[in-house]
Amino acid sequence: MNKGLVKMKKFAVDDVYNLIFDVFLVLGIPADEVKICADVLIESDLRGIESHGVGRLKMYYDRIRDGIINPITKITKIRDHAAIATWDGNNGMGQVVSFHAMNEAIQKAKKYGLGSVAVRNSNHYGIAGYFTKMASDQNMIGLTVTNARPSMAPTNGVEPMLGTNPIAFSAPSDCEFDFLFDGATSIIQRGKIEVKARENAEVPKNWVIDNKAEYMTDPQQILKNLVSQTASFLPIGGMEEISGGHKGYGLATIVEILSASLQTGSFMHQLSGSEGGKKVPYKLGHFFLAMDISAFTDLNNFKHTTGEIMRQLQNSAKAPGKDRVYVAGEKEYLKGVQIRKNGIPINDALLKNINIMIDELRLEKQKKVFR
Amino acid sequence: MNKGLVKMKKFAVDDVYNLIFDVFLVLGIPADEVKICADVLIESDLRGIESHGVGRLKMYYDRIRDGIINPITKITKIRDHAAIATWDGNNGMGQVVSFHAMNEAIQKAKKYGLGSVAVRNSNHYGIAGYFTKMASDQNMIGLTVTNARPSMAPTNGVEPMLGTNPIAFSAPSDCEFDFLFDGATSIIQRGKIEVKARENAEVPKNWVIDNKAEYMTDPQQILKNLVSQTASFLPIGGMEEISGGHKGYGLATIVEILSASLQTGSFMHQLSGSEGGKKVPYKLGHFFLAMDISAFTDLNNFKHTTGEIMRQLQNSAKAPGKDRVYVAGEKEYLKGVQIRKNGIPINDALLKNINIMIDELRLEKQKKVFR
Repeated sequence: MNKGLVKMKKFAVDDVYNLIFDVFLVLGIPADEVKICADVLIESDLRGIESHGVGRLKMYYDRIRDGIINPITKITKIRDHAAIATWDGNNGMGQVVSFHAMNEAIQKAKKYGLGSVAVRNSNHYGIAGYFTKMASDQNMIGLTVTNARPSMAPTNGVEPMLGTNPIAFSAPSDCEFDFLFDGATSIIQRGKIEVKARENAEVPKNWVIDNKAEYMTDPQQILKNLVSQTASFLPIGGMEEISGGHKGYGLATIVEILSASLQTGSFMHQLSGSEGGKKVPYKLGHFFLAMDISAFTDLNNFKHTTGEIMRQLQNSAKAPGKDRVYVAGEKEYLKGVQIRKNGIPINDALLKNINIMIDELRLEKQKKVFR
Repeated sequence: MNKGLVKMKKFAVDDVYNLIFDVFLVLGIPADEVKICADVLIESDLRGIESHGVGRLKMYYDRIRDGIINPITKITKIRDHAAIATWDGNNGMGQVVSFHAMNEAIQKAKKYGLGSVAVRNSNHYGIAGYFTKMASDQNMIGLTVTNARPSMAPTNGVEPMLGTNPIAFSAPSDCEFDFLFDGATSIIQRGKIEVKARENAEVPKNWVIDNKAEYMTDPQQILKNLVSQTASFLPIGGMEEISGGHKGYGLATIVEILSASLQTGSFMHQLSGSEGGKKVPYKLGHFFLAMDISAFTDLNNFKHTTGEIMRQLQNSAKAPGKDRVYVAGEKEYLKGVQIRKNGIPINDALLKNINIMIDELRLEKQKKVFR
């Protein structure tokens, strides 16, 4: 297969933000909660993470219209003890329950040094790093994990059991950007396969296996097999223990435990979004942790140490042909500078989806921009 | 190279424990602290992790005799606020300061739901999983990370900057063993190279690169180059971003931040154990977190959910040629059953080291066992 050309148009950040805002508003999300949801999505586009920004809007749109996400987020507080709380998201918007959960963790950390909120019965919450950044913006360390519908096989296995189960972690620094790690515990996620499909390009070996543990490289076939549960993503480290695959798998299991066991929530096959061929809520769980840095040490010292770690890594000896060593958060920061200036790239397939939503919701203002 | 035969003898667990105990005692570690150190080392052997048990005794022995580890552990409490504390280990035994630090985190978690202790100026603390198991034995989630002397190159780099920086995480379950993940964020550590050297076997590609980013496969050469800092371990995910190497590298950086920034402690090149050709303390940092499960949810529900996650993974579809899917902690549990019955395997090289210590410390009782 040859890598095909994908047509891209660029749109002003404000125009994309207003589109997301209006779609969510017309779908029945209350205005103050729309602001949270639109912020999380646009932040993803601003970090160059196309898979979780306006590119995901149609997914939320479909799920709300199918009745499997409740546009009105009602949070039930199950337990609350000192630094800890457990919440039920009652199948509302993942972004809304998560924004409030991380805020609650931050408030608890202000009091006790640490704060943690575990959430069940939620939905896809967008980029995990949005919520950890809420903590680092307040001079705290932020950590979050979430489970997801099963798509990753355990080491020695071929059945999609665990989700892409990301880990996100933010820490403030005295660099021009904060340390922000946000990564799936699988090597890649579905979004990367969709990109390869659009480009008509081969998928690298080591990303996906079929149910005979053979590597799959045809993106169209992979997308089909993901639906029939006969393809699995591989954990970081790949298929074999010799390359550390059991470590990626172990980390994914940690994420599953933190996202389900602490909440007495749903897990693994229960998160497939389907029951007897019928679409049902995803019932995802999330975990949030905030740590107040100034309870541990002097805040400026922390920022300086973290900054030094980042700078020394950036300045370390390069491999032949590589001119730069990046630290987590750096590429996204650099992309953000470009995107704020040049706009958000939107490809033909996405533009088509956007116009479906514009037509169905009769968004006359957006029609002028995106038509 | 051919895989050579390594001669092994087996010794009773009690005999090995008594050896470790007496060596530490004669080196000047106070008796109640010897108990902690010997427990941590023997637990490693009992889990089949040969690299961190009696196999490491000579390393501690050398460092104490070289004056770079203080056999008497004096802990200075730097900060203490509600759920958080920061300690200075004053270059004492890593096991001792870490045992007390995790205990303190557990006590704080009993009160606040969460507890965390950050430690600086410590030493190699043995298997990280020992300390997380302290928490899971008390129906808590335990997490610890530690930095280590630089040996891992960042993505796009060839300079050993980060340590093998392990992450350990324990959670109680209703299985016959608890979930226990304990893994370096590098694919492997030095111990695995030493095993290959003893076996006269090739090191798999993808584990180690030289300072031109070429894979190294000769274990003797790797051990030499590690000393001259011209070889680097690769992070989980390997050298390239396409295989997820930046994720292993990012996780290793998180561990460095939690082990140094929170403590205003030492990091990366400062942890080399050498200054101007002179041996100096390693000044390692650790981070401990305990989370009280019953503050989040019903303890039995937690154990059942975690157990279900483990069982469903174990029972999931196997890859051709694989008869079993393991969960983290399972292989070590199974090895422990065997080792308790059959004894701890000790190879010729280690037996030689043991006898050096026995002779130099004049341990007459041990001479009868290990000669």
